[in-house]
Amino acid sequence: MNRTDLGTHPFDLATAPAPAGAGRYLARTAASYSNMVGPFGGVTAATAVRAVLDDPRCAAEPVSITVNYAGPIADGPFTIDSRPVRTNRSTQHWMLTLSQDDAVTTTATVVCGARRPTWSDTEIEPPDAPPAESVPVAPPPEFPVWMRNYEMRFIEGGGPIAPEPREQPTSTTTLWVRDLPARPLDFPALTALADVFIPRVMVRQGRMVAAGTVSLTVYFHADAAALAAQGDRPLLATARGQHFGGGYFDQSAQLWGADGRPLATTHQLVYFKD
Amino acid sequence: MNRTDLGTHPFDLATAPAPAGAGRYLARTAASYSNMVGPFGGVTAATAVRAVLDDPRCAAEPVSITVNYAGPIADGPFTIDSRPVRTNRSTQHWMLTLSQDDAVTTTATVVCGARRPTWSDTEIEPPDAPPAESVPVAPPPEFPVWMRNYEMRFIEGGGPIAPEPREQPTSTTTLWVRDLPARPLDFPALTALADVFIPRVMVRQGRMVAAGTVSLTVYFHADAAALAAQGDRPLLATARGQHFGGGYFDQSAQLWGADGRPLATTHQLVYFKD
Repeated sequence: MNRTDLGTHPFDLATAPAPAGAGRYLARTAASYSNMVGPFGGVTAATAVRAVLDDPRCAAEPVSITVNYAGPIADGPFTIDSRPVRTNRSTQHWMLTLSQDDAVTTTATVVCGARRPTWSDTEIEPPDAPPAESVPVAPPPEFPVWMRNYEMRFIEGGGPIAPEPREQPTSTTTLWVRDLPARPLDFPALTALADVFIPRVMVRQGRMVAAGTVSLTVYFHADAAALAAQGDRPLLATARGQHFGGGYFDQSAQLWGADGRPLATTHQLVYFKD
Repeated sequence: MNRTDLGTHPFDLATAPAPAGAGRYLARTAASYSNMVGPFGGVTAATAVRAVLDDPRCAAEPVSITVNYAGPIADGPFTIDSRPVRTNRSTQHWMLTLSQDDAVTTTATVVCGARRPTWSDTEIEPPDAPPAESVPVAPPPEFPVWMRNYEMRFIEGGGPIAPEPREQPTSTTTLWVRDLPARPLDFPALTALADVFIPRVMVRQGRMVAAGTVSLTVYFHADAAALAAQGDRPLLATARGQHFGGGYFDQSAQLWGADGRPLATTHQLVYFKD
């Protein structure tokens, strides 16, 4: 166990916005989670989730979030404005904008909702995978920096980009992954993990390609108790591209708990330049 | 051919909001597209897309939309407020709210973006299906009313709910579908078609279950030229649930053109009561 106390973990330092009045937070990009341009999108999405969860008006756990990456976030401070636009008996809908110098960099909508015991079934299956502890941890890459915050054990695809372009037959990546240092799972961390896959076009073509997420959606299938039960164990994560063309591709992914339960399904549309 | 002139087709009457100043539209629910409670969510989403497309500030075709259904829309008038929160060289981000009596019923974000010729590939495959003309058209149901606006030819799952509950092994539905009367495909119509599947929990359990979409996302893989090439031919549509539990399930779906090209992939989170 190399768990860090909550609150001083780099992830918490990177995603904890400072309240500045009702529905307003001041935040700052964290160098430790920087990406090619600006911060890792998963941390931006996690910061939006945390802004909702930290709000005294928040009435229920998140069930879905969509984040649209409207423009680059420069290193430095940014502002979050959040608004619960509709609160019902069992659901609450939020709209958020992140901005720098009055320019919107990011928009987000978050749906919170009460969960009730119902009939349950999972139609999809987790990917075949050996136990996490039997898969070697990938050496942390120099670049992008944010990947150093994750312990990644690749089973299929992904991994470091080869020095020579090496096309792959599919864009699928499957890996065991968790925060590094290990950290108990919660909604912000799960949100960031939903964006932990490098752009599928790079996996498929086996080389660096300019690419950036345009829109990210996460559907949470776990409640806080299920996330607590997962603790800081690795998640089994798998992602694939569905269609590439016209400068965009879509990615669908699944995040499974150590006990084989789905924690989240997630989708994104990604811009790429070829 | 039983194509109706654009502008007088029931779909156009149901989804064409009247401009009421910059970023504001007045709209009205259409009885012909009514659902169990309020209007068919696909028509609500299509109205949001049209509000963006009709706006003189709209700079590019839509590439993605997320609609959150925050509360029921009562029969009658509603107001759309839309705002291009960020316009870049090749992308434009919109935020919209639909409201009645100053209560937000629906939120939406739309990303518009320029498409450029790039490397293209489709990793997913269309479902096995006989030609549309060889599949009988399902008799239009009495209920919900909106389904009468679609010509549906079911290949797997879906179809009318049986009088006696009849559980199915999976929630998959595959069908050929188009507007009725036939109508050339465009972005609003494709958006509505993304929501044409009845709730997966009803297919799976083979009975009526109270359910409603919470959040709908559509990724458009076709540009206006590809939609024009599709014309008014049936689309091959397939949907399945991934995980059901805690009062929610997620659905992933694909809409394929008559020539076997993916037109859109779409996902939604749905509330259900069991």
